[in-house]
Amino acid sequence: MTDLAERGAARVTWIRSRMPLLRDIRNEFAERRPFAGRRIGMSLHLEPKTAVLLEALQAGGAEVVATGNHGSTQDDVVACLREQGMTLFGRRDDDLDQHAGNVARVLDAEPDILLDNGADLAAGAIERGLPVIGGTEETTSGGDRLRRDLPTPAFPIIVINDSLLKAIGENRHAVGQSVVESFMRVTNLMVPGRRFVVAGYGWCGRGIAQYLRALGGKVAVAEIDELKAFEAALDGYRVDTLENLAGWGDTFITATGAPNVISLPVIERMTDGAVLANAGHFPWEIDTAALYAAGETTEVTDGIERVDLPNGRHVVLLTGGRMLNLAGREPKGNSLESMDLGFLLQTLSLERVATRAAELAPGAQPVPDDLEREIARRMLRAMGAHR
Amino acid sequence: MTDLAERGAARVTWIRSRMPLLRDIRNEFAERRPFAGRRIGMSLHLEPKTAVLLEALQAGGAEVVATGNHGSTQDDVVACLREQGMTLFGRRDDDLDQHAGNVARVLDAEPDILLDNGADLAAGAIERGLPVIGGTEETTSGGDRLRRDLPTPAFPIIVINDSLLKAIGENRHAVGQSVVESFMRVTNLMVPGRRFVVAGYGWCGRGIAQYLRALGGKVAVAEIDELKAFEAALDGYRVDTLENLAGWGDTFITATGAPNVISLPVIERMTDGAVLANAGHFPWEIDTAALYAAGETTEVTDGIERVDLPNGRHVVLLTGGRMLNLAGREPKGNSLESMDLGFLLQTLSLERVATRAAELAPGAQPVPDDLEREIARRMLRAMGAHR
Amino acid sequence: MTDLAERGAARVTWIRSRMPLLRDIRNEFAERRPFAGRRIGMSLHLEPKTAVLLEALQAGGAEVVATGNHGSTQDDVVACLREQGMTLFGRRDDDLDQHAGNVARVLDAEPDILLDNGADLAAGAIERGLPVIGGTEETTSGGDRLRRDLPTPAFPIIVINDSLLKAIGENRHAVGQSVVESFMRVTNLMVPGRRFVVAGYGWCGRGIAQYLRALGGKVAVAEIDELKAFEAALDGYRVDTLENLAGWGDTFITATGAPNVISLPVIERMTDGAVLANAGHFPWEIDTAALYAAGETTEVTDGIERVDLPNGRHVVLLTGGRMLNLAGREPKGNSLESMDLGFLLQTLSLERVATRAAELAPGAQPVPDDLEREIARRMLRAMGAHR
Amino acid sequence: MTDLAERGAARVTWIRSRMPLLRDIRNEFAERRPFAGRRIGMSLHLEPKTAVLLEALQAGGAEVVATGNHGSTQDDVVACLREQGMTLFGRRDDDLDQHAGNVARVLDAEPDILLDNGADLAAGAIERGLPVIGGTEETTSGGDRLRRDLPTPAFPIIVINDSLLKAIGENRHAVGQSVVESFMRVTNLMVPGRRFVVAGYGWCGRGIAQYLRALGGKVAVAEIDELKAFEAALDGYRVDTLENLAGWGDTFITATGAPNVISLPVIERMTDGAVLANAGHFPWEIDTAALYAAGETTEVTDGIERVDLPNGRHVVLLTGGRMLNLAGREPKGNSLESMDLGFLLQTLSLERVATRAAELAPGAQPVPDDLEREIARRMLRAMGAHR
Repeated sequence: MTDLAERGAARVTWIRSRMPLLRDIRNEFAERRPFAGRRIGMSLHLEPKTAVLLEALQAGGAEVVATGNHGSTQDDVVACLREQGMTLFGRRDDDLDQHAGNVARVLDAEPDILLDNGADLAAGAIERGLPVIGGTEETTSGGDRLRRDLPTPAFPIIVINDSLLKAIGENRHAVGQSVVESFMRVTNLMVPGRRFVVAGYGWCGRGIAQYLRALGGKVAVAEIDELKAFEAALDGYRVDTLENLAGWGDTFITATGAPNVISLPVIERMTDGAVLANAGHFPWEIDTAALYAAGETTEVTDGIERVDLPNGRHVVLLTGGRMLNLAGREPKGNSLESMDLGFLLQTLSLERVATRAAELAPGAQPVPDDLEREIARRMLRAMGAHR
Repeated sequence: MTDLAERGAARVTWIRSRMPLLRDIRNEFAERRPFAGRRIGMSLHLEPKTAVLLEALQAGGAEVVATGNHGSTQDDVVACLREQGMTLFGRRDDDLDQHAGNVARVLDAEPDILLDNGADLAAGAIERGLPVIGGTEETTSGGDRLRRDLPTPAFPIIVINDSLLKAIGENRHAVGQSVVESFMRVTNLMVPGRRFVVAGYGWCGRGIAQYLRALGGKVAVAEIDELKAFEAALDGYRVDTLENLAGWGDTFITATGAPNVISLPVIERMTDGAVLANAGHFPWEIDTAALYAAGETTEVTDGIERVDLPNGRHVVLLTGGRMLNLAGREPKGNSLESMDLGFLLQTLSLERVATRAAELAPGAQPVPDDLEREIARRMLRAMGAHR
Repeated sequence: MTDLAERGAARVTWIRSRMPLLRDIRNEFAERRPFAGRRIGMSLHLEPKTAVLLEALQAGGAEVVATGNHGSTQDDVVACLREQGMTLFGRRDDDLDQHAGNVARVLDAEPDILLDNGADLAAGAIERGLPVIGGTEETTSGGDRLRRDLPTPAFPIIVINDSLLKAIGENRHAVGQSVVESFMRVTNLMVPGRRFVVAGYGWCGRGIAQYLRALGGKVAVAEIDELKAFEAALDGYRVDTLENLAGWGDTFITATGAPNVISLPVIERMTDGAVLANAGHFPWEIDTAALYAAGETTEVTDGIERVDLPNGRHVVLLTGGRMLNLAGREPKGNSLESMDLGFLLQTLSLERVATRAAELAPGAQPVPDDLEREIARRMLRAMGAHR
Repeated sequence: MTDLAERGAARVTWIRSRMPLLRDIRNEFAERRPFAGRRIGMSLHLEPKTAVLLEALQAGGAEVVATGNHGSTQDDVVACLREQGMTLFGRRDDDLDQHAGNVARVLDAEPDILLDNGADLAAGAIERGLPVIGGTEETTSGGDRLRRDLPTPAFPIIVINDSLLKAIGENRHAVGQSVVESFMRVTNLMVPGRRFVVAGYGWCGRGIAQYLRALGGKVAVAEIDELKAFEAALDGYRVDTLENLAGWGDTFITATGAPNVISLPVIERMTDGAVLANAGHFPWEIDTAALYAAGETTEVTDGIERVDLPNGRHVVLLTGGRMLNLAGREPKGNSLESMDLGFLLQTLSLERVATRAAELAPGAQPVPDDLEREIARRMLRAMGAHR
């Protein structure tokens, strides 16, 4: 084994030991072999947790052909998986053209089943008319693309992010935890007594607000949807407009899904030294283009920029407006347990597609209810809970 | 005005001053007169909050013909409302036959619109074939009866309890608050460090568990539905079966909606002095019949019975297994603000029925989305929140 | 037994079954007989919990001669204790002169040991030069009186309220719990989202603020001592002056120990409908004299008055500015467990005085450290905790 | 300026902008010049926050002669401070002998005032009989050494860690925050539902337990002192022995100050995969010597070791049993605000020594009460709080 592969293997070993749900599934798949004779094409972040997922699929008989997302591929993990006989395309430093080529090469392999992220593989498979049995889609935005922007495929796609379990386990709790951890880690600022404004009270916003308040932060919520705003108010938060909160808060965290929520006019009303961070998937919630154009930017340290505004005040921008929990030198993302849960949703959904595709309607659809319940039961067992 | 009516009026005045949503609606109804020429027949608890509701309907032009629920009618409130020209049937001490007669007399008045509780009026109206325009139903159980057990009526019935606002504002927060308040008030026991078992993790159970833990209680949850159990586990609670928890907890509170959840075998496994309370609507969640038959019961004080079991241990039963927040001499039920919210749902739903019944399908249905949003906006304003 | 005594006995039985620390002490005292041949004179609230305390002293061989506090004596408890052979003076309806007479009659009996409240007995014993061995004093204000206002007695007085255990168990946790319970019970208002101002951040204020925030309240703290204010700020509360908070809060609760903290000028700055309550021992923290003189008062319901001010706004005064947890028809005071703890402090301190008075200095003094630790260990055992 | 000094300067600039208390003091010192003509000798971690402290002293007229602690000196900060004319000894890679030499060289400079850590400078000054005016000592262990192990010096030493403000602001809140942040950052494990055992319920343990529970962790406390154990039980935690908790917890965090609290016999009773971390100052609370000798150790990743035990189970040891918040590649330690507070205590205590030493007794002593109050007032202002 090469040094690179060995380093990857060591990291994967640790992660695997903390993902009991995937470990069990791997053992079951080795018995059931649901993917025997099937080729699974994947496009997803290539890091140690994903490796544990792919090992389970391979143990189930799948031939794996995979590429990563742009910019996040970890070369040691790729090396380690190649040693196990999987076909992987891509390197950390690939540019966008090379990445598109990697996706194309996965499709060239004519996979039977897709494990997709952002509907990239599905779009190609539909265009090429590939004889795909079915697949899964990790993201809400991929689900939206399938439902709104692409022709309905002839095969079923289970959208993992539609899952209520994922909303609770990942969006509320794991994102809530990782955002407060990242805020503390990156800024080293005190949470108790700090005035946080959370923009957006969806699953992520609820989790972020809850975790910040639990640590002693003063939390206000900005939310334009009246039903969610109502929930926030009943949950005891100050609920107000960003305009009104701009002069109150000293830290602003967005999780709305919408662009330019923290606009330049809002920023200009903030007090000196206000901290801005985005916890949403897309790096567009803070209008960084307008901010950089209006002020003078100094890089302070990893993940921290200071922008001096013409009004004499400055704001502190975390990780350039990209997802806060990717900031700094040691980002971890969501907890291992929540990834274990999310990937269990993937594996069982892929098994359903592989073995009972005929029962599923074509096109995008949520995780079947019986699978949700099966996964809830497994997670409860892993947590030592009983019913 | 009689003394009785005066006493009722004084109590209603105080309550009215704390129900700003109903106060505003009353003023608007006085302008819009949506019920002009209409007779509204009501069957609902007759207490001061309900009086404020009826006043708003009357201000909107309605002729009000009403009766209370069995056993909860407050005579001073009835007297006060009669002074205002409403027609009311029933007294506190009516027996079940008299109560059935009161319901019949409301129907005899041939109401155009129903404000119902448990579908009693609707059942009669359907049977008699009354020319009703439409109505509202307060409870889930009434909604279930309409959907499952009764013939679909020719008119629409908006089921108030289907509302998400009510689930959040009343079932989670107001019930959560009133249950912990009632537990402390009735027992005078310390909450921090106490081991509570909450049976059921629906909206009510979530609220009860949250409020108890917030006060320093150790809380475990028993829940047979795997999706709700999953949520409870992620929320950080111990999740286990009642059998396993019987020997751990020292206080058991049920909010499942199901009968005999706290069965005699479960009770027999409890430690000496365990406290039992029911927070669900029906007095059937604790199997009191089996409990009373098995043990020897002593009334201790208001709302508290001690039952000595053959196994040498005793349990403490609160309020005979009826709803905990009706226990003791000074029960208050849910907070005024949550009642204000719930009755705003009533008034605007009744207005919708009165003025736009043709747009509504016949039979039971949830509160229209635009009304939910309108009500959320009003509640937010009343709480001083902005969007 | 008379009916009255029987009713008292039933209530005492229930309370006794929930005070395991006193129950154990009673059994030990029956063996050790530390008070054999001693007469204990008591002046303390005469209610069921105190009865359990007195029973333990009697079991230890004491002859008990006792009176209650003014206005709080419960006649059925008195009757029940008389049946057990104790000497009790006083009735619920005694006026102040009669109460003074009762205290004098306790002193006339020439007690060897005092169980005092507010130093009434000690003051008399010093003045009369009674040959007292020693005693205990329940309150801080009694301790202050002994240390500042009275001649140092020839005998030791252990001041129970100096105990750290009492500060934590009673002042922080039990008062915190009973104040939020009483607020909810008396007003029936919603806690989540409500804006509370807590005046004073001593042990009681800390507990009140903590419990209110735990239930979803927005809490600000007013505190003139900078060290306590610092603690409140670090604990995450808004810290500000009452003047600044007057227009922000909608509910004001005092626990400062100082008079006229809620002054008329502060009240005049409050928003319409603000609620005022006192949680401090003395009924002087809200300047009710100035308030009643300035406005027009209407009694709304038990424990609630509305005062309309000349500025067109009104405030709501709970329980006339007396201790909030004595408000309403069903007040409970602090939890049974905290009373059990407090009375354990009493019994073991009295035993120390009875058996080892020579080791104690004359005058007011805290509970000896070894007793504190003994009591902590007993409470831990009662809570099922181990070290 | 050299590249190294420039890098240091950039980091110090950012930190300085987030330490408003020190910034104000620096400006005041530039006016008051309390250290004019004085040489201050320091021995303390040399990192950016300390640099801001030294700048304030220099602005106050002090000549600064300083060295760092062993192993934590940051070379870029040293370079940056040398550019500002301070005399600094030591480099990151110095061995213990070199470190001792650095301390000696600070003493060779014959400082008038000491800023000490662990009483190293004080011990040398006493031994050499240096004509020191007075000084400060940062740590409790240094204070203990001064009080118990060294001859009383002729000059006063103010022990910063005796401060109540520091106990609250740093030990409870800042350590609580940094420990949960570090746990999440290093392990990437989920906090809600996890079973934490916190050993020790002093200021640090209270903070750690509070923050973990706030994030949804199940927390038990092991504490041998009965008074602290009592407080933990009243605060709602399970309180038990480490022996009893060994099989319950899945994560163990120590903050007791005592050696070998997590002994090998305790470790051997733990469940498979239990995580061990130390949050105390000294790396002795987990008996790592016995652990390493008993099991087989694998380094997993930064700050994480896996030790396989002869009983077939394994434990996970974080950061080799050294302080958890020094673990990993990106440790941050306590929040900037808490360091600002701690160093304000330093600066004002040093000013007191420099200008009013005659008013102070010789030897170790707490921060004068008037300074504590002055500092509380400044911190309140910095947090936007009023009294």
